Amino acid sequence: MKVSFIGLGVMGFPMAGHLAQAGLDVTVFNRTESKSITWTEAYKGCYKKTPKLAVEHSDIVFICVGNDDDLKQVMLGKDGILAGAKTNAVIVDHTTTSADIARALSAICAEQQISFLDAPVSGGQAGAENGQLTVMMGGKESDFNRVEPVIKHFSKFVKLMGEVGSGQLTKMVNQICIAGVVQGVAEGLHFARSAGLNGVDVVEVISKGAAGSWQMDNRHNTMWQGQYDFGFAVDWMRKDLGIALDEAKKNKSTLPLTSLVDQFYADVQNMGGNRWDTSSLMARLEVHRK
Amino acid sequence: MKVSFIGLGVMGFPMAGHLAQAGLDVTVFNRTESKSITWTEAYKGCYKKTPKLAVEHSDIVFICVGNDDDLKQVMLGKDGILAGAKTNAVIVDHTTTSADIARALSAICAEQQISFLDAPVSGGQAGAENGQLTVMMGGKESDFNRVEPVIKHFSKFVKLMGEVGSGQLTKMVNQICIAGVVQGVAEGLHFARSAGLNGVDVVEVISKGAAGSWQMDNRHNTMWQGQYDFGFAVDWMRKDLGIALDEAKKNKSTLPLTSLVDQFYADVQNMGGNRWDTSSLMARLEVHRK
Repeated sequence: MKVSFIGLGVMGFPMAGHLAQAGLDVTVFNRTESKSITWTEAYKGCYKKTPKLAVEHSDIVFICVGNDDDLKQVMLGKDGILAGAKTNAVIVDHTTTSADIARALSAICAEQQISFLDAPVSGGQAGAENGQLTVMMGGKESDFNRVEPVIKHFSKFVKLMGEVGSGQLTKMVNQICIAGVVQGVAEGLHFARSAGLNGVDVVEVISKGAAGSWQMDNRHNTMWQGQYDFGFAVDWMRKDLGIALDEAKKNKSTLPLTSLVDQFYADVQNMGGNRWDTSSLMARLEVHRK
Repeated sequence: MKVSFIGLGVMGFPMAGHLAQAGLDVTVFNRTESKSITWTEAYKGCYKKTPKLAVEHSDIVFICVGNDDDLKQVMLGKDGILAGAKTNAVIVDHTTTSADIARALSAICAEQQISFLDAPVSGGQAGAENGQLTVMMGGKESDFNRVEPVIKHFSKFVKLMGEVGSGQLTKMVNQICIAGVVQGVAEGLHFARSAGLNGVDVVEVISKGAAGSWQMDNRHNTMWQGQYDFGFAVDWMRKDLGIALDEAKKNKSTLPLTSLVDQFYADVQNMGGNRWDTSSLMARLEVHRK
């Protein structure tokens, strides 16, 4: 089967690699050409100079780019995907975007007899590298069934959440929940330090019960030490929370905590933490500590 | 070994029961006498009409009452524990209180050659009933070593966190973290409903990753259905968050989320939710939903 992968960032690079390793005929495109070259040196496959050329013969086109604007460009540009894709191709977009753009692109694709599935992922860079991503999808069931066996090559769990856009909405719920958990753990550890407790001992005691979370298990140690030079960056989190807050305005849900934490991330950006891990909400609380 | 248990509420009743079942000679006291009678019908042991009489011959005195004021009364009242306790007895207080009162009572006890350990618990009513509580303790190591084997009869994990008061401070971290997690999950599910998603399906997808938490695993189903008539009551949570926020003022830590969520629980109280489970933050978000 011929497939394309558009976007070789920290996520797309290893995801496309898993597809090549599984024996698929993979053609890639990346805006910065040097990354495409590196990819073809690492994996069996070829690259093209435009999205249009990269997708011409593909049954499935995977996309993983930065944001709504990048996605519009690779899809709708003069040399974009829709200028080259075959009739009956399926486009699977792994970018985290608004639900609106997923719906709009799906409608445009339908005019060309091309299918579109929104398919944001969780699991981060590590999940992409070891092929253990979770993929939350929106679109038609018949399209989902066509692509699911291929997506399995880089994921541990794939689920169709509903019509197009539902994958993006599910990803927004994920980010909303993370915002609350991280700020809660940050305040807990900040309080612990102020109260003279050892935060690592405290987590040993409380992490198995009602206060426990993935963030507590996997981030308390680095938070306690003030290490944030890894993981999912604050800039990306703000992009995702911005999408969720925009959507909440449209669907009339109330997200006071998410809105507040988004502002806290703005503080972290102002501290120079644009590339720090999401757990750096702790650094914001401790900014005045000597 | 002779022990006493003061306070037979939803926690103390089964905790004292586990001690009796382990073969200890248990004398109980409860403010409402009928509960003491029920306890002696359920377990081998006897009850007394005052804390003073209940503790007279005991090596270890356990306490589990409502709040700081209740604790002061059973400790320092005319017929209180300190009017009856033996020299060299150890008092283990399982009430969730301020760290200050733990320190003050410890100092008063020391004048009578009596030891005091603060020992708040997590695990809830279910943990008390099946003997699987977590106990976070503050006090002297020698005292801790004397009581630990006995506490094991109703707990799965016991840890000395530091000097007296440290148990209470650890419990405060626990409640701070819970506040963030619950509000995050509530906003996530509220958003999911507004966006037309099935919240239970969403949790299936996101709960194994970075958004995952005990609260998500154990409360999403009841939150989605709007069931809150069980669990750890909002009134108790507000008591605990009040203690944490007072302590934060003293130790100069900053808890913006905890403070906000405390106010949200005030809204839930005004909705009549005093006895609803902590997860009823969801009900507050959905109050306007038809």
